[in-house]
Amino acid sequence: MIGKLNHVAIAVPDLAAATALYRDTLGAKVSDPVPQPAHGVTVVFVELPNTKVELLHPLGEKSPIAAFLEKNASGGIHHICYEVADILAARDQLKAKGARVLGDGEPKIGAHDKPVLFLHPKDFVGTLVELEQA
Amino acid sequence: MIGKLNHVAIAVPDLAAATALYRDTLGAKVSDPVPQPAHGVTVVFVELPNTKVELLHPLGEKSPIAAFLEKNASGGIHHICYEVADILAARDQLKAKGARVLGDGEPKIGAHDKPVLFLHPKDFVGTLVELEQA
Repeated sequence: MIGKLNHVAIAVPDLAAATALYRDTLGAKVSDPVPQPAHGVTVVFVELPNTKVELLHPLGEKSPIAAFLEKNASGGIHHICYEVADILAARDQLKAKGARVLGDGEPKIGAHDKPVLFLHPKDFVGTLVELEQA
Repeated sequence: MIGKLNHVAIAVPDLAAATALYRDTLGAKVSDPVPQPAHGVTVVFVELPNTKVELLHPLGEKSPIAAFLEKNASGGIHHICYEVADILAARDQLKAKGARVLGDGEPKIGAHDKPVLFLHPKDFVGTLVELEQA
């Protein structure tokens, strides 16, 4: 069912510093910061030859990554995103196997303007998993 | 400097269960377990079209992931690995910019029989980073 690793998301307490780290220290190609108010984050995309790393910083008062950064003050890997061909079929297969989908279980339009879902970390070896329709 | 994302490593408390999750629930192609006594882990490789996920389980008494699993009983993402063309050049550039290399600073032969180094999570936004010579 799962296809490509779409991205690894890293929550960061200082977006400018993390961007400089990936650009200047690690020598990667980075985007300008992209505010995504609907998702409560500002994102810098780190473009690798085969996938992306996304640096996430809280935006607004109800950011979904604020609690994570309170627990992980230096930052850390927040989630990984796998592509699926058909997100509704994937969701129904996962639910049939007992996996929990976060929220109301309906796909939302994600940061790349494609339908996404998040799966419960306790059902996926402690890892928050995002599925994105490819 | 950094090239492809070589893999995302997830430490897991139950390797058979995590393998079944990735194979049967997420529908990915998984390898047989590969014991790597020199690295203190048994690894199952999850092959995605563009990169790999590695499921790591402690092997032996001095496993480098034992402490992580004590703190994260359900498992979790342990490290990410980026490829570099020349690991000694990469190390020297990183050290010149103040980044700390773990251990004695000399590359070791890693799980894929290539030279690897680990970088200090505090210098990389809370993320343990492995570099592997491509």
